[in-house]
Formats: sequence, structure tokens, C-alpha cells
Amino acid sequence: MSYIAIDIGATNIRVATGDYTGLIEKVMEPTETREGPMGVSRQIIRLIDSIKEEDPTNIGIGSIGPINLELGTITNTPNYSFHNIPIKEPLIEEYKVPVTMVNDCAAAVVGEQYFGAGSGLRNLVYVTISTGLGGGAIVDDNLLLGKEGNAVEVGHFTLDPESEIVCGCGCRGHWEGFCSGSNIPKYASYLLRGTDWSGGVLHMLTGGSMDKLDAKVIFEAARKGDKYAKMIVEELGYKNAIGFANIVNAYDPELITVGGSIALNNPDQVLKPIIENIEKHTINTIPEIKITPLGHDSVILGALALALNF
Amino acid sequence: MSYIAIDIGATNIRVATGDYTGLIEKVMEPTETREGPMGVSRQIIRLIDSIKEEDPTNIGIGSIGPINLELGTITNTPNYSFHNIPIKEPLIEEYKVPVTMVNDCAAAVVGEQYFGAGSGLRNLVYVTISTGLGGGAIVDDNLLLGKEGNAVEVGHFTLDPESEIVCGCGCRGHWEGFCSGSNIPKYASYLLRGTDWSGGVLHMLTGGSMDKLDAKVIFEAARKGDKYAKMIVEELGYKNAIGFANIVNAYDPELITVGGSIALNNPDQVLKPIIENIEKHTINTIPEIKITPLGHDSVILGALALALNF
Repeated sequence: MSYIAIDIGATNIRVATGDYTGLIEKVMEPTETREGPMGVSRQIIRLIDSIKEEDPTNIGIGSIGPINLELGTITNTPNYSFHNIPIKEPLIEEYKVPVTMVNDCAAAVVGEQYFGAGSGLRNLVYVTISTGLGGGAIVDDNLLLGKEGNAVEVGHFTLDPESEIVCGCGCRGHWEGFCSGSNIPKYASYLLRGTDWSGGVLHMLTGGSMDKLDAKVIFEAARKGDKYAKMIVEELGYKNAIGFANIVNAYDPELITVGGSIALNNPDQVLKPIIENIEKHTINTIPEIKITPLGHDSVILGALALALNF
Repeated sequence: MSYIAIDIGATNIRVATGDYTGLIEKVMEPTETREGPMGVSRQIIRLIDSIKEEDPTNIGIGSIGPINLELGTITNTPNYSFHNIPIKEPLIEEYKVPVTMVNDCAAAVVGEQYFGAGSGLRNLVYVTISTGLGGGAIVDDNLLLGKEGNAVEVGHFTLDPESEIVCGCGCRGHWEGFCSGSNIPKYASYLLRGTDWSGGVLHMLTGGSMDKLDAKVIFEAARKGDKYAKMIVEELGYKNAIGFANIVNAYDPELITVGGSIALNNPDQVLKPIIENIEKHTINTIPEIKITPLGHDSVILGALALALNF
């Protein structure tokens, strides 16, 4: 038996072999974006062939979305100049084996239950705070997908409908519009507007240019005690606490694990304000909330679990 | 075979017999609240015995919450002066048959799928806009319950964290805090504050007293063209549209049906602003949104479906 796990990210594609104990061999490449819709699947096939020891038995995929669950395609992602990228069909044609494809956060929560902190739990949610902000949920031991595989789009919960902060999707006041890596610079600029933030660490790290504000410098400056950076981190934490409370109201989980580079690189700064403030926003029993022990492997381990459990 | 369906509401208890075609005989009484924690189950047993033609085979219950799913109790509802009301155990002792108990909105969505507009659908949500505001969801053909049966507490989604409107649960800016029957008077007073609303139909129907503002007079005055009542109905619709968008992001349903007295009594005024505004707040495919065809029987029909499908 040979199981293949694939993590299709906006930046990188990872392909691995694995078994019930975890990943065996793993390769990673920047995601192919210039060779047209078929370029991605050709790249995946080349990567699989470079590590497989025998023909695959099952393939599991966690992919950036939105996806079309039925067709096994990536339908419309801003990272490509083309739409409807077929993934599942080319792999089935090549290897003649079952291919299971879900979105990346759905894969990650399966990974958490199978290989991570969610072992033995029937109700858990995985949240990624990365370039984007998304989630995957298992409720009553069932992975939530929805009519098109777009359930658990928690990053698009509206937290503040009157806000002038607009999400990448075009909607006003979405959680992702405030708190994802791609949106933190915009929200931070908004929060600094009208303040005199000169003279501190944040000003030094950015050379005083709003254009140099990003999650990395903001969290770093806050760790070093910069008053304005701390205020921004606090506001992000306040928004995250509301987002997590909405998750608790929506899915009533026992555990929420958090991954994605913003959370993995700044664990205490991200978790503390969520844990401190969440109970102001929900009356359900608060679940355990912690950083995923799977680090950057949540999605690919979930893809492996999908392949193993087909 | 004899199936018993029970709807435990804050105001009334309904008990019915039924089969695969629907309800057969139904009785209703004001919910017993003065005889202590065992009074409710004693009332239910008396009502069952008054209509049953033979000993029950299975019993299904939809109950006001919050409930403890495992123990089959109503844990902590503001309608009683006592807590932890045992429901499931006394019925099992009396009739020695399986009893399935979920919260009222979970029952209602099962009723919708089994007897109503959700027939054949695998992804649907039921929303009640009544004294309270809540929901039930079926995702990928599974009824969502969560660790304690409190998933789909959509009324407690935070829509506006800076609002001065506080929900009955004590949290700020919850959907229910604005839009449920018990909270509309408070939100309407807030919206009218500082306006000169004298002279119109709303002022006439209430005698100019903010204390007389309730959902009934507001929707009636809006239908009669009162400018301020129309403004309130519009604001309620705007908030409902955000709440429904969050539901679409959370569960990706094909259909949302709407029940509860506020929606059933004012169907067009409730639905129109939701349908017109929802796409401003989500990028998922918008589901069909309509009033439940089951009227006030959603919960008891769901309880019947639970009994039939045990």
C-alpha cells in the first residue's frame, strides 16, 4: 500500500508519501502558476513520481480554495490568472486510484484529529491565521463540507459591518479583512492614522513608512514594548476573540487548534487575548484553545489521513 | 407502532401522536412551571396518556435550551425558577422505550428535511425568529449537535461588538440582542432615541409610549407606511442579512427556512431585506431562503421525525 498526500498552497506545493505513523518522504516546490490550468496537476504528477516507491494506492489532497468538491477543481483563486484548475481528474487518469480532495482547512482539521491534538475528540475546529484566515470543523465526528465544500468560511464572518476595512472578497468588516497576514498592514495603518507613532521601535523597524508595516514587524515591535505595536496586537486579539466566539457558537467544539504562520510565529501574542476575551462574546462552554502541535504540516497530514481512510 | 412527538416551549408544551404521513392527534397546554423540576415530565406523561391509543414505541423531543444532550435535561432556562429539569429519564422510566431529545431548532431542521421544504436536501438550515433567535443545521446530511448539543447558537453571533445593545445572555452586539421578539422593543427604542417620531401611525398605536413598542406594532405601523417604523424594520432586516450571511459562511446550505412568530407573522417584511442584502456579506453561493411551510409545527414534526428514525 502506498499513500500520497498533497498540500496545494498559494505559494508552495508539498507532496509526501506516508503511512499510519505519519509522513515518510516529503518534497516541496513553489506552486506552478505560469503553465496554464494543467500546469498544477503536471507539477503534482512530477513530484509524486519523484518520491513514490510504488504505484499509489490512494491520494488525499488539501487545497487552497474555493474548490468545487464535486469536480475536484480549484475554481477561482486570486493566485492564478486562470480559473477552474482541474486537480482530481488528471490524477485519477494518471494513477487510476481514488483521490479525495477537500479544502486546506478541512484537511487540516482531519490531520489534527488523526495525527494531532484532536485524537479521540468528536468535536474540534482548526483555524489558520496566515496570509488568509480560514477554518475546518469536525462536528459529531463528521467533517463539515456543505453544498459546495465551502462550509466553515469563518474568515468571512462579519465582525463589524460599519467598519471602513474591506476584506479581499469585497465585503465590509470581515474577520479576515482585519486579522489575516495580507490584511494586517491595512488595518494597522488604519489604527495608526492620526496617532504620533514616531520615536518607537515600530517607527524604527519600518523607517517610519506605513508601506513597511507588516505582521512580522508589528509583532516584533510589540514584543519589544512599542506602545503602538502593542495597541495593534491588542486590537487584532480583540477581533480574533470575537471570531473564535462565533466559532464556538457555530460548532460547539471541545478543542480549537490554531495554525498558520501568524499564529505559529507569535503564539503567545495571538492566543492570550483570545483566551482572555472569548467569554465576553459567547455563553457556550469555552473549549480548549491551543496552537496546533503539527506546525506547518497540518494540511499535508490531513491529506494523508484522507488517503488512509478512503 | 406508536410514535410520540413532544415540543417543549417556553410558553406551551405540545404533545402529538403521528406516523410517516405526519401528526395524527395533538394536544397543547401552557408549560408547567410551578410544580418543581419534575412537574414538566409529569405534565408530559399526563398529556401522552391522554392521546395515546397504544403504548409508545419511540418518543422524540424538541426542547427549549440550553439542554444537556447526554443527560436529557433542560439545564438552565430563564423561564423556570429551577435548573436541571430531567425530561428523558422520567419518560424512559414510564414507557421503557427509546427517547431522542435535541434542542428545539435542531428538531425543527429535522422536521424541515423530513416533512417540509428540505426534502431530499443534504444541506439546510432552519432559523427561528421568535421570542429568541436560534438555528438548527443539517450539513452533509448530518444534524449538527456539538459537544453539548449547543452548536448552531447563531442568535449569539456577534454582529456589532461596539453596540450599546446587550443580548439577554449578557454579551454585547449579538444578533438576538437586536432582532428577537424579546429584544426588538429595546433596539427600537434605541433607534428612535433623538428622533421626533410623533404624529405617525407608530406613535398612534403606542400612544407615544416607548413602553408599548413591540414587534407587532412596529411591523404593523411599517405596513401602514409609518416612516420611523419602516426605518426600524429596515435596520432589523439589515442585521438579519448579516446574520444569514454568517450562517451561509458557517454551513454552506442549499436552503434556509425561516420560522418563529416574528417571521411567520411578517413574512415579506422579514425576508425581503435579507434576500436583498445578504450578498453584500458573503461570497459563498447564496442559498434559497424562504418561510418554512410547516408554520408553528416545525419543532413537533421534527420531534416526530426523530421518533420515526430512531
